[in-house]
Amino acid sequence: MMAMTADGKIAKDKSQLADWTSKEDKKLFVEISKEHGVVIMGSNTFATFPKPLPDRLNVVFSKNSGQDIEGLLKWVQGEPETVLVELENLGYQKALLGGGAYLNTLFLKKKLITEIIITIEPKIFGAGLSLFAEDINADLQLLEHRRLNENTLMLKYKIIYLQ
Amino acid sequence: MMAMTADGKIAKDKSQLADWTSKEDKKLFVEISKEHGVVIMGSNTFATFPKPLPDRLNVVFSKNSGQDIEGLLKWVQGEPETVLVELENLGYQKALLGGGAYLNTLFLKKKLITEIIITIEPKIFGAGLSLFAEDINADLQLLEHRRLNENTLMLKYKIIYLQ
Repeated sequence: MMAMTADGKIAKDKSQLADWTSKEDKKLFVEISKEHGVVIMGSNTFATFPKPLPDRLNVVFSKNSGQDIEGLLKWVQGEPETVLVELENLGYQKALLGGGAYLNTLFLKKKLITEIIITIEPKIFGAGLSLFAEDINADLQLLEHRRLNENTLMLKYKIIYLQ
Repeated sequence: MMAMTADGKIAKDKSQLADWTSKEDKKLFVEISKEHGVVIMGSNTFATFPKPLPDRLNVVFSKNSGQDIEGLLKWVQGEPETVLVELENLGYQKALLGGGAYLNTLFLKKKLITEIIITIEPKIFGAGLSLFAEDINADLQLLEHRRLNENTLMLKYKIIYLQ
């Protein structure tokens, strides 16, 4: 699940906080991530939050591992498949991937993403980071689209891998 | 008016044809551009079409000017404002800007775009060209959103310039 501008940017740069998205986007992210029980993210994305997101497991891909906190924070590295198996062994059935572009790319290349939820905020950044960081081709099936507020849209797609 | 993938790409590269967009997107583009009477585009975008788009004036920004064809093809260079005044003198009240990223950026920086129509095709490219090519900030107001077909969405925004 990712928020982006109407011109497809998820942030101006790696260190930008997610403070430019609507409260409805944040609310939906909290709702969906709590329902999943797990949010997986890269260390740059994790660094944009003041602290681990409460009431769900924050799984952070990072070269430098820190202190795990049971049920709240887990530092991981290595192959995404291995991490997913580990999460399954901990009893989690699904996980929400929350970016950034590098981790999204890694998971998509390995065909580990089944659905993608995009909220489109009413902004233009012109330049910045995209949802993905490499040439990858996939088709999508639009499952749902709705307004979250007057100017923000939520799109939900199923990913159809091409080969 | 621009077509983009769900990850915000308008093309994989400068020379990619627009053959990846839906027939509903193409139909809407024809409809809206004919209604405007004028399509403005850059020379790379123009080069992706086999010939000038019929029944409307194709205005092509290019360093190398070619042969004009009255009512169908006009080669221009220089400042966008000057070109728009020239078009007004020819009796055109509005024009559709059809990309690419460089020309979109030029017009947006000069606050010459009032509305933006984006069709979102059910695809991921991962990498490629974006709607704009430079850091620019603007806010948007969502005027309309609807499905063009099962998987393609059309979003229409008003641009709110920040300063």
